[in-house]
Amino acid sequence: MLIILRPDASSSDRDRVVALIERLGFTAQIIEGVQRDAVAIVGNDGRVDAARFTALPGVDDVIQITRPYRMVSREWRAEPTVVSLPGGRTIGGPELLIVAGPCSVESEAQLFGTARAVLAAGAGALRAGAFKPRTSPYAFQGLGDEGLELLAAVRRDTGLLIVTEAMDEEGLERVAEVADIVQIGARNMQNYALLKRAGRAGKPVLLKRGMSASVADLLLSAEYVLSEGNPDVILCERGIRGADPGTRNLLDLSAIPSVKSLSHLPIMADPSHGTGKRALVPAMARAAIAAGADGLLIEVHLNPAEALSDGAQSLYPEQFALLMGELRGIAGVIGRRVS
Amino acid sequence: MLIILRPDASSSDRDRVVALIERLGFTAQIIEGVQRDAVAIVGNDGRVDAARFTALPGVDDVIQITRPYRMVSREWRAEPTVVSLPGGRTIGGPELLIVAGPCSVESEAQLFGTARAVLAAGAGALRAGAFKPRTSPYAFQGLGDEGLELLAAVRRDTGLLIVTEAMDEEGLERVAEVADIVQIGARNMQNYALLKRAGRAGKPVLLKRGMSASVADLLLSAEYVLSEGNPDVILCERGIRGADPGTRNLLDLSAIPSVKSLSHLPIMADPSHGTGKRALVPAMARAAIAAGADGLLIEVHLNPAEALSDGAQSLYPEQFALLMGELRGIAGVIGRRVS
Amino acid sequence: MLIILRPDASSSDRDRVVALIERLGFTAQIIEGVQRDAVAIVGNDGRVDAARFTALPGVDDVIQITRPYRMVSREWRAEPTVVSLPGGRTIGGPELLIVAGPCSVESEAQLFGTARAVLAAGAGALRAGAFKPRTSPYAFQGLGDEGLELLAAVRRDTGLLIVTEAMDEEGLERVAEVADIVQIGARNMQNYALLKRAGRAGKPVLLKRGMSASVADLLLSAEYVLSEGNPDVILCERGIRGADPGTRNLLDLSAIPSVKSLSHLPIMADPSHGTGKRALVPAMARAAIAAGADGLLIEVHLNPAEALSDGAQSLYPEQFALLMGELRGIAGVIGRRVS
Amino acid sequence: MLIILRPDASSSDRDRVVALIERLGFTAQIIEGVQRDAVAIVGNDGRVDAARFTALPGVDDVIQITRPYRMVSREWRAEPTVVSLPGGRTIGGPELLIVAGPCSVESEAQLFGTARAVLAAGAGALRAGAFKPRTSPYAFQGLGDEGLELLAAVRRDTGLLIVTEAMDEEGLERVAEVADIVQIGARNMQNYALLKRAGRAGKPVLLKRGMSASVADLLLSAEYVLSEGNPDVILCERGIRGADPGTRNLLDLSAIPSVKSLSHLPIMADPSHGTGKRALVPAMARAAIAAGADGLLIEVHLNPAEALSDGAQSLYPEQFALLMGELRGIAGVIGRRVS
Repeated sequence: MLIILRPDASSSDRDRVVALIERLGFTAQIIEGVQRDAVAIVGNDGRVDAARFTALPGVDDVIQITRPYRMVSREWRAEPTVVSLPGGRTIGGPELLIVAGPCSVESEAQLFGTARAVLAAGAGALRAGAFKPRTSPYAFQGLGDEGLELLAAVRRDTGLLIVTEAMDEEGLERVAEVADIVQIGARNMQNYALLKRAGRAGKPVLLKRGMSASVADLLLSAEYVLSEGNPDVILCERGIRGADPGTRNLLDLSAIPSVKSLSHLPIMADPSHGTGKRALVPAMARAAIAAGADGLLIEVHLNPAEALSDGAQSLYPEQFALLMGELRGIAGVIGRRVS
Repeated sequence: MLIILRPDASSSDRDRVVALIERLGFTAQIIEGVQRDAVAIVGNDGRVDAARFTALPGVDDVIQITRPYRMVSREWRAEPTVVSLPGGRTIGGPELLIVAGPCSVESEAQLFGTARAVLAAGAGALRAGAFKPRTSPYAFQGLGDEGLELLAAVRRDTGLLIVTEAMDEEGLERVAEVADIVQIGARNMQNYALLKRAGRAGKPVLLKRGMSASVADLLLSAEYVLSEGNPDVILCERGIRGADPGTRNLLDLSAIPSVKSLSHLPIMADPSHGTGKRALVPAMARAAIAAGADGLLIEVHLNPAEALSDGAQSLYPEQFALLMGELRGIAGVIGRRVS
Repeated sequence: MLIILRPDASSSDRDRVVALIERLGFTAQIIEGVQRDAVAIVGNDGRVDAARFTALPGVDDVIQITRPYRMVSREWRAEPTVVSLPGGRTIGGPELLIVAGPCSVESEAQLFGTARAVLAAGAGALRAGAFKPRTSPYAFQGLGDEGLELLAAVRRDTGLLIVTEAMDEEGLERVAEVADIVQIGARNMQNYALLKRAGRAGKPVLLKRGMSASVADLLLSAEYVLSEGNPDVILCERGIRGADPGTRNLLDLSAIPSVKSLSHLPIMADPSHGTGKRALVPAMARAAIAAGADGLLIEVHLNPAEALSDGAQSLYPEQFALLMGELRGIAGVIGRRVS
Repeated sequence: MLIILRPDASSSDRDRVVALIERLGFTAQIIEGVQRDAVAIVGNDGRVDAARFTALPGVDDVIQITRPYRMVSREWRAEPTVVSLPGGRTIGGPELLIVAGPCSVESEAQLFGTARAVLAAGAGALRAGAFKPRTSPYAFQGLGDEGLELLAAVRRDTGLLIVTEAMDEEGLERVAEVADIVQIGARNMQNYALLKRAGRAGKPVLLKRGMSASVADLLLSAEYVLSEGNPDVILCERGIRGADPGTRNLLDLSAIPSVKSLSHLPIMADPSHGTGKRALVPAMARAAIAAGADGLLIEVHLNPAEALSDGAQSLYPEQFALLMGELRGIAGVIGRRVS
């Protein structure tokens, strides 16, 4: 951590910074500049809180050099985390995990029909929401427990892994009983009570990036889960708020190689929420795999025109099957495979 | 709601749109264009879900004309909501509510000292966090219940109203016992479980705008609280993620007159979190009042250099007293007053 | 175009809107709603200026239905534009154009060395700047005319096509004498004097998206060039300002399928400026091709550590050669080819 | 400048960084960390180009400590620049400059009528465009030279100072003959050829912030003008692209105290373009003055409903007169005055 002093800082301002560094148990190193001085903290292992220094008189800015997270970083663990899933499947290794399904569980017929279609096309897991976070209180909020029961039934019937979202602490326990991967949605990325509970869920956690979160914010939220004892966190890029009103979200694929360089955790992409438009999904799904994503979340619906939510971004089963062929080809080019 | 068809939409695509509108109980009106047609929904009272139409074949886009919220809108209630607070204070009427205090409750001495200083300068309420949402799991997380007890004590001692944040459903009940206004933070603006619980809290709710939320998103989150039966929602602009890495957040003061034109709810501004830098706080506090804010949240600390969080944006008590004088002057120019 | 009236608009407000529509030579269609009315303009061919209506009393908003551009749209020309280049090369058809080279022309040795390396790896064109737009007036501004002469020499020597930037009207004429494709940079995307001159340049124009431009803004800027008589415009996504200070820019690959759905013009991607970090370039280059880009601009430097500008994002020649192999593989999967 | 090394950088990587610092004539100071080392450049006066270091092997990041601009900074000149204007007026001192008028010069009647109205209400200068940068080539582009002649006539007739925009180098010379202040628009903030010409214009320059420019970018563009010999630069905040599609732009008033703390140059605000909506203009105009702006640019039109451009954000003359009264009151509270 580097504490930059103001050009007009006094020597007693500088001494106060040095004294606090030493009081916290670290060593201070002074850098004398032409316009201004700076003081480096030597020995910081990533846990010094910048806020302690920014408030001191004469301090202009505090620059993080050591990254603010620990257990999620490549420095903590050099090898990629490979999360083991039931049925011998994994995510984070050479094999890609393609998760497909409808936005919401709507009915037995819709869920089983879509599940069989995505299984036939080669998906490894089914995603469908029983609890839905909706911007408007008047929009369809999901089937709740009844939806969870249908998901459990489809799991028994098809062998597909289940990925579904938990929206609150109480719901998380019920979701964790049914799901193979518990999803924390973008709106809850900084719901710390929920993250801590997810750290004790006993199931892998799929953590979606918040709509204006930086990659560092995402990693810090993952750190909450790891620091509670759950090492199986799968990150997911799902689009951030962008400057262009023409697209619902802006899928930031550069987050994929960025995360890979900073962290050992696997990362997926969600091109359906990340674009909001069916016509853009196949291109962005291919691009995500080419960029190195460890898997995809793709919305597929037997009959998008009848979907109760997010139909506009859901692929038809035939489109999904066609896309799977392209994904297999691209995976092969970069030395990976779709099971 | 206007459903825009693609230039190559067929007449059966158009018929399908019309049929769904009629099935939902509304009337369809066709607008024939040169390049493309559109279909308007006549009779929508704000609760038709756009997602039902975006997924239909031949549909290019769906445009909201009727606003998606109801109870928070000016159309629902033309007169401004004036929230009554203990001690005869109000927010939303001619009187401004200035809420000041430290980011976190740190100790009895710090809390009582700061409370007396802000009371002397004319603040109407004290803000201080007992539960702190922190980006890093290693940063100071607040004193918890012990902090709530100190807040209750300072309330008895000084008569200042108490504003403090609830981060989860369980905590909300404890906070609501002590606080005069329960704060929902920016990171939880779309934590719908928490919003619904706040709708049954029996206390006014201060709802902060999320870091990438539009004004419409903020109003929809407030709609969650109102639709559960709590009419006393106070909105708060606290800065959104901006393009300039030189400032922590971008305080969007235009949200103040925007909210005033769309909604009857009061709105405050938080220039401390909204700028992150002490040197910018007085200018933006004055600007917020000049823009029509119904109140302010300002961080003040007896000794910012010793603060455990957010010291860099906390005013010294003398700065706050000076600022209060300017705020009184500006309030007078626009026909309002600081009590 | 749809003119949305305010809930409190009077019937004379509505009549005034209708009268202006008819005065402009179009037909008005009224849509009566529950909360508010709207008026549609029937017959608009994309050239009605919304600003004429937004200012009328009682008008709340004006919504574009007809797209504001004409000649660049799919409705104007259904087939993709394939730009012919010297030597039988093209862009916009099945063949991808890979343009590589250093940020700036620095010296004869640097330029010829890099040119031969990228030619050997399979690049079809060389990019290098003689005139450099730099944020700081104290940064290296390019070799100017001397740089253009070196580019002409390398063209004669290697047969590589030349892509280089023009920054002002006078320079554009000199650049157009040497370049096979004249680049207009992101900072000049809305420099309309320059765009009009580019419309009369007699050479294909590579138009980079501005740092906060929407896809519609980019297409409108291209419309300036086409409307002056030059149909050979190649768009380029190069990263927009994003929310994450950890990356210089945010490469918005969804712009590629978006542009493809709206326009017949070819579009390239620039993963070097779009990420600013060498470690991210290969992943994003692969992703851009997978997303359907018609070509790439990639910075390659014989010795990035000695580059006078943008060395941090330049690939080593060996990295570029390796990447070309991957790009060939991905192109094959989606039915395209690298020459 | 601080060069942060990668955790896996070798000692020869570190030596190479040190060698380059010494080759450029500065002193290197090494900071040894737990995870990684860093090297500080001692003696940098703000002109070292970061790009020279980011490309070196083993370098992870380069952090600017010394600001990248010089002549515009408070360190270069501690006292605020007060720009002298004809008729004894100034900007940058205690007196505020209120500039008002229509977006475009449309006709003699419109221009003279509006000029007299804003003069009567107390404006010090008239703004109106003869050359208009329009997103669409089909929108009204201004009257050109005829507009300049009308501006010269209104200046003779009313004594109002003239502020008008130059869009290209050739136009700048003609504009500088007529205008008292030459405006460079947001779209041209990084048109360096135009900035250099403005540096030799012999007239004060009003430089508007680009739509995604940071405050540092704005100051660097001003540096281009100053470094060509023109010290009279007036900055202007006019709204940046924001996350909310509900507003055209996001007026970033925090730029005002930010610029004041970093630079000696005066800064105005343009609440008309900054909001795009008439209903928001008075609130944001008041807020800008309260935040410390040295002046305002406000669109006023005799008959906004007939305006050829930007009518939706133009005030009626009576609204402007009312606003001027409020601005005088707020100016008085903070020790400034409207002439």
